[in-house]
Amino acid sequence: MNFSWSKLFQFVLVGMVVMSCKKENTSVVEHTTETSTIQEHPKLILTAQGVKDIRAQLGNIPIFDNTLKAVQEEIDAEIALGIDTPIPVDYSGGYTHVRHKSNMIMMQKAGVLYQILDDEKYAKYVKDMLMQYEAMYKTLPLHPKTRSYARGKLFWQCLNDSNWLVYVSQAYDCIYNYLSEDERNTLENNLFKPFADHISIDSPQFYQRVHNHSTWGNAAVGMIGLVMNDEELIDRALYGIKDLKLDANEKDDDGGFLNKDGKAGFLANIEEPFSPDGYYNEGPYYQRYAMYPFLIFAEGLHNVKPELKIFEYKEGVLLKSINALLNLSDADGDFFPLNDGQKGMSYYNDALVTAVDISYHFGTQDPGLLSIAKEQGKVLLDDSGLAVALGIKNGNEKPFNKKSINLSDGPEGTQGGVAILRNEDIELVFKYAAQGSSHGHYDKLSYSLYEKGEEILQDYGLARFVNIEQKGGGNYLKENKTWAKQTIAHNTVTQNETSHFNGKYDIGSQHHSVLNYFSSENEKVKVASAKEVNAYPGTEMLRTMAILKDEDFEKPYMLDIMKVTSDKANQYDFPYYFLGQVVETNFEYQTPKSLNPLGTKNGYQHLYVEGTAKASSDNSKLSWLNKGKFYTLTSITNANDDLLFTRIGANDPEFNLRREAAFMLRRRNTTNTLFVSVIESHGGYSPVSESAVNSNSNIKTLKVELDSEDYTAISITNVNGNTKLFITANTDTSKEANHNIKINDKNYEWSGSYYFK
Amino acid sequence: MNFSWSKLFQFVLVGMVVMSCKKENTSVVEHTTETSTIQEHPKLILTAQGVKDIRAQLGNIPIFDNTLKAVQEEIDAEIALGIDTPIPVDYSGGYTHVRHKSNMIMMQKAGVLYQILDDEKYAKYVKDMLMQYEAMYKTLPLHPKTRSYARGKLFWQCLNDSNWLVYVSQAYDCIYNYLSEDERNTLENNLFKPFADHISIDSPQFYQRVHNHSTWGNAAVGMIGLVMNDEELIDRALYGIKDLKLDANEKDDDGGFLNKDGKAGFLANIEEPFSPDGYYNEGPYYQRYAMYPFLIFAEGLHNVKPELKIFEYKEGVLLKSINALLNLSDADGDFFPLNDGQKGMSYYNDALVTAVDISYHFGTQDPGLLSIAKEQGKVLLDDSGLAVALGIKNGNEKPFNKKSINLSDGPEGTQGGVAILRNEDIELVFKYAAQGSSHGHYDKLSYSLYEKGEEILQDYGLARFVNIEQKGGGNYLKENKTWAKQTIAHNTVTQNETSHFNGKYDIGSQHHSVLNYFSSENEKVKVASAKEVNAYPGTEMLRTMAILKDEDFEKPYMLDIMKVTSDKANQYDFPYYFLGQVVETNFEYQTPKSLNPLGTKNGYQHLYVEGTAKASSDNSKLSWLNKGKFYTLTSITNANDDLLFTRIGANDPEFNLRREAAFMLRRRNTTNTLFVSVIESHGGYSPVSESAVNSNSNIKTLKVELDSEDYTAISITNVNGNTKLFITANTDTSKEANHNIKINDKNYEWSGSYYFK
Repeated sequence: MNFSWSKLFQFVLVGMVVMSCKKENTSVVEHTTETSTIQEHPKLILTAQGVKDIRAQLGNIPIFDNTLKAVQEEIDAEIALGIDTPIPVDYSGGYTHVRHKSNMIMMQKAGVLYQILDDEKYAKYVKDMLMQYEAMYKTLPLHPKTRSYARGKLFWQCLNDSNWLVYVSQAYDCIYNYLSEDERNTLENNLFKPFADHISIDSPQFYQRVHNHSTWGNAAVGMIGLVMNDEELIDRALYGIKDLKLDANEKDDDGGFLNKDGKAGFLANIEEPFSPDGYYNEGPYYQRYAMYPFLIFAEGLHNVKPELKIFEYKEGVLLKSINALLNLSDADGDFFPLNDGQKGMSYYNDALVTAVDISYHFGTQDPGLLSIAKEQGKVLLDDSGLAVALGIKNGNEKPFNKKSINLSDGPEGTQGGVAILRNEDIELVFKYAAQGSSHGHYDKLSYSLYEKGEEILQDYGLARFVNIEQKGGGNYLKENKTWAKQTIAHNTVTQNETSHFNGKYDIGSQHHSVLNYFSSENEKVKVASAKEVNAYPGTEMLRTMAILKDEDFEKPYMLDIMKVTSDKANQYDFPYYFLGQVVETNFEYQTPKSLNPLGTKNGYQHLYVEGTAKASSDNSKLSWLNKGKFYTLTSITNANDDLLFTRIGANDPEFNLRREAAFMLRRRNTTNTLFVSVIESHGGYSPVSESAVNSNSNIKTLKVELDSEDYTAISITNVNGNTKLFITANTDTSKEANHNIKINDKNYEWSGSYYFK
Repeated sequence: MNFSWSKLFQFVLVGMVVMSCKKENTSVVEHTTETSTIQEHPKLILTAQGVKDIRAQLGNIPIFDNTLKAVQEEIDAEIALGIDTPIPVDYSGGYTHVRHKSNMIMMQKAGVLYQILDDEKYAKYVKDMLMQYEAMYKTLPLHPKTRSYARGKLFWQCLNDSNWLVYVSQAYDCIYNYLSEDERNTLENNLFKPFADHISIDSPQFYQRVHNHSTWGNAAVGMIGLVMNDEELIDRALYGIKDLKLDANEKDDDGGFLNKDGKAGFLANIEEPFSPDGYYNEGPYYQRYAMYPFLIFAEGLHNVKPELKIFEYKEGVLLKSINALLNLSDADGDFFPLNDGQKGMSYYNDALVTAVDISYHFGTQDPGLLSIAKEQGKVLLDDSGLAVALGIKNGNEKPFNKKSINLSDGPEGTQGGVAILRNEDIELVFKYAAQGSSHGHYDKLSYSLYEKGEEILQDYGLARFVNIEQKGGGNYLKENKTWAKQTIAHNTVTQNETSHFNGKYDIGSQHHSVLNYFSSENEKVKVASAKEVNAYPGTEMLRTMAILKDEDFEKPYMLDIMKVTSDKANQYDFPYYFLGQVVETNFEYQTPKSLNPLGTKNGYQHLYVEGTAKASSDNSKLSWLNKGKFYTLTSITNANDDLLFTRIGANDPEFNLRREAAFMLRRRNTTNTLFVSVIESHGGYSPVSESAVNSNSNIKTLKVELDSEDYTAISITNVNGNTKLFITANTDTSKEANHNIKINDKNYEWSGSYYFK
């Protein structure tokens, strides 16, 4: 879609002429007093009472007033440009796709404006557009693009059709009373009902499952059902298509099972993917995406069917999940890109405006949420947005403090989880979860590390440019499977150059890692420890990660202890996906004349080897500089270890991958082993003052003092010779357990999972 | 230098004990009334009258008060930490280097605090430290590091010793009256005089030349001379070492001539490197560095020797140069990295605080400068800083509007120049200057392109990590010569894979490009055109660059016309150093299995070939995405043109280079030719809303309509079929010239250098 500003101005002018003509036509007023259903609408998201309350406060609630003004300006400009409902032809990012997506949002907003401002031009705009859709939809075939496992009609996939109906249901509710009964019948019979049927009954492979796609489908069918007062649609939304069973072995485009256990419907979609802590099994990026239909449909159910007590369902998991999601963001509010997640998605996304406002209004009025709402700078134009606006106006906001948190995974909270360790400005995200549905990556016990919202060690995220049409239609690129999902793309161990579970979804989705322990009570010591025994049959991996505040160091540092035990000798690759410029190493390395791929498959084919070395001492060190901060990795190595510098980008014929670096430790022909490393953030560099402060590592020696089945003890000695000892319990990790062991002829006695002094 | 916070706290405690003991000792007061010179000091930067004025306004001038408070906190903490004057051993970035550098600044600041706050603890701190330096300096040998062409004593190079004396002269002036005559004699005879002699008489290869190094030397000698009232030193500073002539053929570490024409001294250093427009021949990065000694010494001369009228010297070029320098920054205030320039250096650097304040106070009180001072957030703690603080307080500030500007190069303004074209948010920096002294790059007619302070096409800048000790001692890396200075590293033409002037400084420094025309009067059309005939003997390059605002386009776009005429067939390489992710091309390309260098020398050895193609149509197009904006290059090509994707980083054994991309057009076996391209910035992408707006180029066709000796005419047709024609006059370019030519049977008649309609 090419923007022509001169064209836009022409449209504005034409639109204004049209507008001024239409103003004189006041015959539409009769509609508003025509039927007996007047009192019942709006009822879905906006309520009749809410509209009264909002109108009473207008002009007196700054964040709401500003949001309203911005929406009004946007819709006025859009009305001036005129309506376009083109025959669908494009994939994501193409004009018809973008236009129908825009239309649904414009209708939803115009509906709200009609209610709040009581100006019929907005109702008329919605009605006119809906009538155009009705005229088109009657004879509309399947979308011409064939890539989807479930093709839509307005869009290339049912998912987007469902998005459309979720928004348009709200618009319809807002102008319900503005329409004549005939008009309503026309729309319901020719557009809404067949539309709802297409995305459900006609597309069971999309609708009848537990998946974020289906959640959108359920919400779409349910919301239009609530507006139309159609109990059959509402039931179909809540419980799935009646009496339908799908083949349990079929898979979708992403390799996920279509419906392995027969569960379906909105309630099942709440039941299954959310853990009791509110963690969503696909990860925060998709939780954000799924959040909107979950919450907006829940709000509708709350308003129309309060007897369902939807916000109390599964011990209030919907509201809990908002808190979990907010905690799954870095200091800038960007979500951690676990599994398939596009970087840069943050709690500034509109879905999170919905989430925060609904959580505040229907939850406990947490004043921390108000500070996020204030940063978001806008609110929902409904009852919940009004509550938030009033909260801010009354000065009730407090900072939203993110803490170290452990989020269980799985419907019962028993399928591993995600731990986030926070210590001053350092954040570590440790993933020991289940597969994460079809969007999961093969990255058991992987982690990423942040400082003040900047990545220290990155998780690559997905290989996709969402909605950028030129990049594979804006959809998943083949490198998502060949690179981003593979184990070697993550900060964890790859054994024998094969991915966890051999990269097989069927196997991966049967397993999950297991928490060893999590501890965040101590202000200075945050630890998470977890075990994985299924990724490589015969091999056990126990990883203990800590962020330690040590008075001998400038900032908290990360300690990483990966204990591998196997029933045979293997090659272990242990990468560190650092970003920025190499500053120094304590080992000699060679750089090749030509760059060649590190391997031929399982993601290795995408890594160029930029440098090779043999570890020359007990500790191998790499320092780098990124965005004005120095970082040093200190890793315990032996003389047989290979050290590699790699760069992403080999076998990438369409420049789909980012050319980013990794440092990799390779240990060959080893049965049991221990990978121990520390990452320090230290000092900084300013290109303005050109001063480099504290640019050297503060660690003299990192040493394994003990490694037994039950305990692993690591000493950290700084450059001044001060030594700290960290002992982690590998087996008996209960908080109450008492431990007493001898290391180097000294007794250590403590209770709890770890010792640090 | 390792920072240990616990150590720091120890120092704080120790320092506090020392302080409380010393407080009781009040015998030092007698010093302040001892001699007859009391009234004369301070006189150098602070003046006795200025101190009175400042004291009268304190508490009433927010930006000054805040700066003072910050400095006081800094110095109080430093005093508490105690004095350390270690025996010099390190290169830049090492502890002794950093410490002596810090000491000089602490003394300067403490001296100022003593004057403004009238608190003797600050005078005592300066005195105690100076006495430690005096005790050490008496017997100090040359610095042990041998890399410099002119070794210092406190630092590895005389340059840093000179920095030290420039700051310490100010400190000495501030506590002059606090010291006894004996103390002054001790310091002058054992420290200041020998120090000044070492950096001048003993180091003529450093001192006796026209170079930013020498400017520091001159200022150092002159400023201590002004404080000491030593006419010999003052003369040596202004005019160089008397009766000394150096070998005209000797060169320094950077390959620059030491003293080709025998000129030396501060006045020669103003005369030579500054053009009448105030452009400094080495470029803005070094101008910023040189600015401080130029201005601070000039301020001292103004105060102590007003009869010299230093700010009027060479028609006020010092103050003009500040305006030029501010205009050589992007929208964020970052200086364009012409020649050797480290990216990120900006007008937030302290040297620019000096420049802005002095320019305001001693110039015309330009209210635009106040807005920059306000952004800088601090002022000089002297008379000029007071003037700025009062100006801001009185609300006199106005925005500093950077405009399109043409800055001549050369002492007489006749050696080419630098043109900056600004059109809305797009900025183009076009370099057609002289060599730029030893810091110059071989990049005739090169350019870089910016949008709102972000690089669209980058200039690489230098290959150096200034003051980061681990990277080659913080000094120039060998890749600066093998890569950064080479022609292929720049957005201009490389002929036959050799750099301009064969990369030879002796030849390059004899030549400069020549302005064809510059035009910025038209709000919508900004054009610069220049010619280079010496870079490749037998080849002439005429480049015309424009930023055009066309109502058919979303934003102004760049049009680039490079006309090459040669007496023989050559290979021309024409790179575009874009940043970010490839989005789309309109040609098929192949990517190699292994990455190999593009060549073996002249910078080519540092470029990997990541993709190759044959141009398949009349226009080759490349779109990319960077920092949320889409860009498209449209270049006129023919079927014989090779297209290359390259990436920097080959033959870089210490990871000194950034792994950044280029797209390159290669035209083989061609005599005369024309390179024509357009770069559009269009639309954008938000990872939060995941919406891609206007992601496609708006250009359908770019076409040469005429190319004669006198005229080149290019048509630009957008996707809607609207065509604009740009005609540039290649020979008769005067503003008054009337032109009348026929293109495709149509007459075009206009006056001036170009036609655009």
